[in-house]
This record gives sequence, C-alpha cells and structure tokens, in this order.
Amino acid sequence: MLSIKDLTQRIIDFRDKREWKKYHTPKNLAISLVIEVGELLEHFQWKSDEEILKDTKVPEKREQLADELADVAIYTFLLANELDVDLEEAILRKLEKNERKYPVELVRGKYKKYTELVKDDGDSGGYFKTSSGRN
Amino acid sequence: MLSIKDLTQRIIDFRDKREWKKYHTPKNLAISLVIEVGELLEHFQWKSDEEILKDTKVPEKREQLADELADVAIYTFLLANELDVDLEEAILRKLEKNERKYPVELVRGKYKKYTELVKDDGDSGGYFKTSSGRN
Amino acid sequence: MLSIKDLTQRIIDFRDKREWKKYHTPKNLAISLVIEVGELLEHFQWKSDEEILKDTKVPEKREQLADELADVAIYTFLLANELDVDLEEAILRKLEKNERKYPVELVRGKYKKYTELVKDDGDSGGYFKTSSGRN
Amino acid sequence: MLSIKDLTQRIIDFRDKREWKKYHTPKNLAISLVIEVGELLEHFQWKSDEEILKDTKVPEKREQLADELADVAIYTFLLANELDVDLEEAILRKLEKNERKYPVELVRGKYKKYTELVKDDGDSGGYFKTSSGRN
Repeated sequence: MLSIKDLTQRIIDFRDKREWKKYHTPKNLAISLVIEVGELLEHFQWKSDEEILKDTKVPEKREQLADELADVAIYTFLLANELDVDLEEAILRKLEKNERKYPVELVRGKYKKYTELVKDDGDSGGYFKTSSGRN
Repeated sequence: MLSIKDLTQRIIDFRDKREWKKYHTPKNLAISLVIEVGELLEHFQWKSDEEILKDTKVPEKREQLADELADVAIYTFLLANELDVDLEEAILRKLEKNERKYPVELVRGKYKKYTELVKDDGDSGGYFKTSSGRN
Repeated sequence: MLSIKDLTQRIIDFRDKREWKKYHTPKNLAISLVIEVGELLEHFQWKSDEEILKDTKVPEKREQLADELADVAIYTFLLANELDVDLEEAILRKLEKNERKYPVELVRGKYKKYTELVKDDGDSGGYFKTSSGRN
Repeated sequence: MLSIKDLTQRIIDFRDKREWKKYHTPKNLAISLVIEVGELLEHFQWKSDEEILKDTKVPEKREQLADELADVAIYTFLLANELDVDLEEAILRKLEKNERKYPVELVRGKYKKYTELVKDDGDSGGYFKTSSGRN
C-alpha cells in the first residue's frame, strides 16, 4: 500500500508531464477542491442517508462516488503539496490535538464543540451535570 | 509511512472510542467536509497567491494551514469509509482514467476540459489547430 | 421593500467607503462565498433537520442563522455585481427555464434530474411509466 | 422591481406546484447550495480574474454565469424561507453590524479581521501605528 506521499508523487508526475504546474496556485487548487466537493454532493442531492448508502451497493454508483472522492483527495493532496505541508504528519498531529481536546470520558456518545466543553466547565464546575451535549 | 487505510483506521479508532459513529452519516460528513474546506479557505481570504505562499514560510501559519488540510483529509477519509470506497484504489483508478482522458501530447502546457477536447475533435478534425487551450 | 439592486447598492456603498473594491475580484469573492456557506453549515453540523428547525424557534440561534444567510446573500450579490449580472433578471429567467425543463405533470411529487427525464423519454417513449423518480 | 420576498414567493410557487416541498429540508437545501456554488466556480476554474471578467463580455458566457448565480441565490432564498428568516431584514441588520465592526477610519483601504482590530487595540493602544492591515 502507498503513503500519501507516494500518491501525491504520482499525481505530481501526471501534472508535470502535462506542464500544468503553472495553473496550480493555491487559490486555483482551492477553487478546484470546492468544485469537486460540489460534484461529490451531487450524488447526495435530495437523497436520504439511507438512499445514499443503498447507492454504494450498486457498482456503477459506487464507482461514481469513488471517482468524486478521489478528486477531492487529489486536490487536497495537491494543495498540501503546494503549501509545503506534510499531510500525513498533519493528520497525525491533528488526531493528537483532538485526543486532548475531546477527552473520551467527557464526550462519549455525544458530540460537543470544544467551546461548549470549556463553557460548561466555566459555568458549572464540571461536564458531568450536562446530560445533553449536542443531542 | 502509513497508507490511507492505516490513517483511516486511526481516525475510526478515535471516533469509535467516543461513540460518535452515529453522527457519521453521509450527509453529516459531507456537511463537515464543506465546513472544513471553508475554514481552510479563510486562510486564503483577500490574499493573493503570493501572500498565501509567503504564509507557508511562517511556522505558526503553516501549522494552521496544515491543521485545516488535515481536517479536510480526515473527513474525506471518513466519507470514503462510510461509502465503502477504497480511496487509494479510487485515486489510482482516477489517475489512470485521467491519463487516457488527457493525453500528454494534446494538453501539454494548456488546460482543457475533456468536453472541449472532444468538441475540438468533432468540430475540427484535430486538436492541433487550436493553439489556445483554456486561454 | 427593497429590490436586489437597492440592497446591492447599499453593500457597494459600505464597501466603497472602506475602499475595499480592490479586494473584490471574482475569485476573492467566490472564496468568501464558500467561507460563508461553510459558516452557515456550522449551524447544521451533526444535527438532524428537526433539530435545525427547532433552532429557528430560539431567537438567539435564529439571529445567528440569519447573519450567516445574510453573508451568503451579500457575497452572492457582490459577485453578481462584479460579473455584471442583473441578479433579479437572472433569477426570473432561470425560473422560466426551469418551468420548461420540469413540466408539472412529469415531475409532480418526485424530483428528477433533467437528464433522467430526457433519458426516460429516449429509452421508454414516455415519462409516465416511471413511477419512481428520485424516490 | 421585486423584493427578495416577491422573488422567494415565485420560487415557492414553482416548487409547490411540483410538490417538492418534502425535499426541501434544511440539510438538503444546504447541500444543493454547495452544489450550485461548485457549478458557479467551474466557470472560474484555472482562470485568472482578468479572464473571468473578460468572459462577462461574451453574452453566452455571461448567461451561464448568470444562471449559476441565480441558482445560488434561489437556494439561499429557499433556505432563508425554510429557516423562517426575513433575508432583506437580515442583510440590512448585518450591514449595520458591519458598520459598527469596521469603522471607516480604521479600515480604509485595507481589509482587517475584526479580531485583528481588537488585538491591535489591546496590544498597542491604537490602530494607527499599524500601517499594514492585511497586506
């Protein structure tokens, strides 16, 4: 299996063979990322979550979803590359930050924004009296 | 280095420890992906490409960009996971499709939509008389 | 009540007093539009449609939603202005196009993409045998 | 000329004749809004601001841009309607808030985030020593 770095290199090779680097400015790549997210969401339009999940059982539809997800990933990797970001490292660091920000015992089973966690703490001296979270 | 599959597994572990799977429906993840793309773009707002690239030299700003890119990648990986898509495979297949769709000799140095390539072909019997591409 | 043109003029006045026109290039405005859409969607994150609608009953939350919707509208109006588009006229023309594209008797109660309507027609000689639409 | 309320009513009439209200939940409309923003941005893809502005001189291209802007506006108006927000009022209130948040004398000719304005104030006792803004 390949790393993000390996995959990014293949994308860059594809790009550089076509001499398209000049188009790959941060704002252009960001715009392309938004376009691809929009195309991915077209497959969700007017559907319930159940219908979307059912689509994944239909090979033709799953391939369309996979293609759109691939495009989103490709532009994310290209953008990381242009911005000189090691994306694997960034993901691992973000997970560590989130581990600290969302301690299991405080958020289990309910999603809470960090700001709400802090506010709860400030207002009430503890998280545990809040039974609600984002439910 | 880790594969997308490895990284996705770590994200899933983080998620499942918090019992947040129930929130991770396709539409919810898509909405979160859009939010994160928006947060990434906040770092581009009102800036030129040059200013954005200059920001990447400032460690504090590069870490912010890296964090936002990580969030975009994390939701993309989670969405692929929920939609039962092998994202590495999808990226490699998409690159192959693009190899065929954008032959080097036809698009070198100029970006053209596939539809324009085909139209050029239909209208003119060849791509080469078009000197412009996307200009 | 004001027209889109009136509202746009007020936004332009606000902008020009601050000499911000130079920042309002098409790509910059598009990026700002995406950011505002993302901020609007933050209010939907991890929520069901029912929860979102319940938020609209809480004055403080409805004001937040209204502010984000206003920002989305403001950047849409600014972008129309920069692209020399009369947005009211564009909306009315789009509605007319959609009237023709989605005839009531063919789509009542079910959403169908135009491409599906055409395909149905081509494949089957009629829309009426399809009972499903996008259900 | 029509108000946002008038235009929204026409959109609602179009929608209700087709019995599509059931599809117009907040999340569905938000997803459609993102899709339309993506389609608008397709017209910007790989282009410079100058090229985009040049497109607005070509009637066929301006009509395409107008159609996409109309779709973005239509979904924004529909979303405001579902969320029980008076969009005209929201825009006017947002402009008033922004008048207070971005005083002309402090931001003229340079864009500054509100947080930066406040920080400048806290750090330095005044905005005027900062010559930079967002440059």
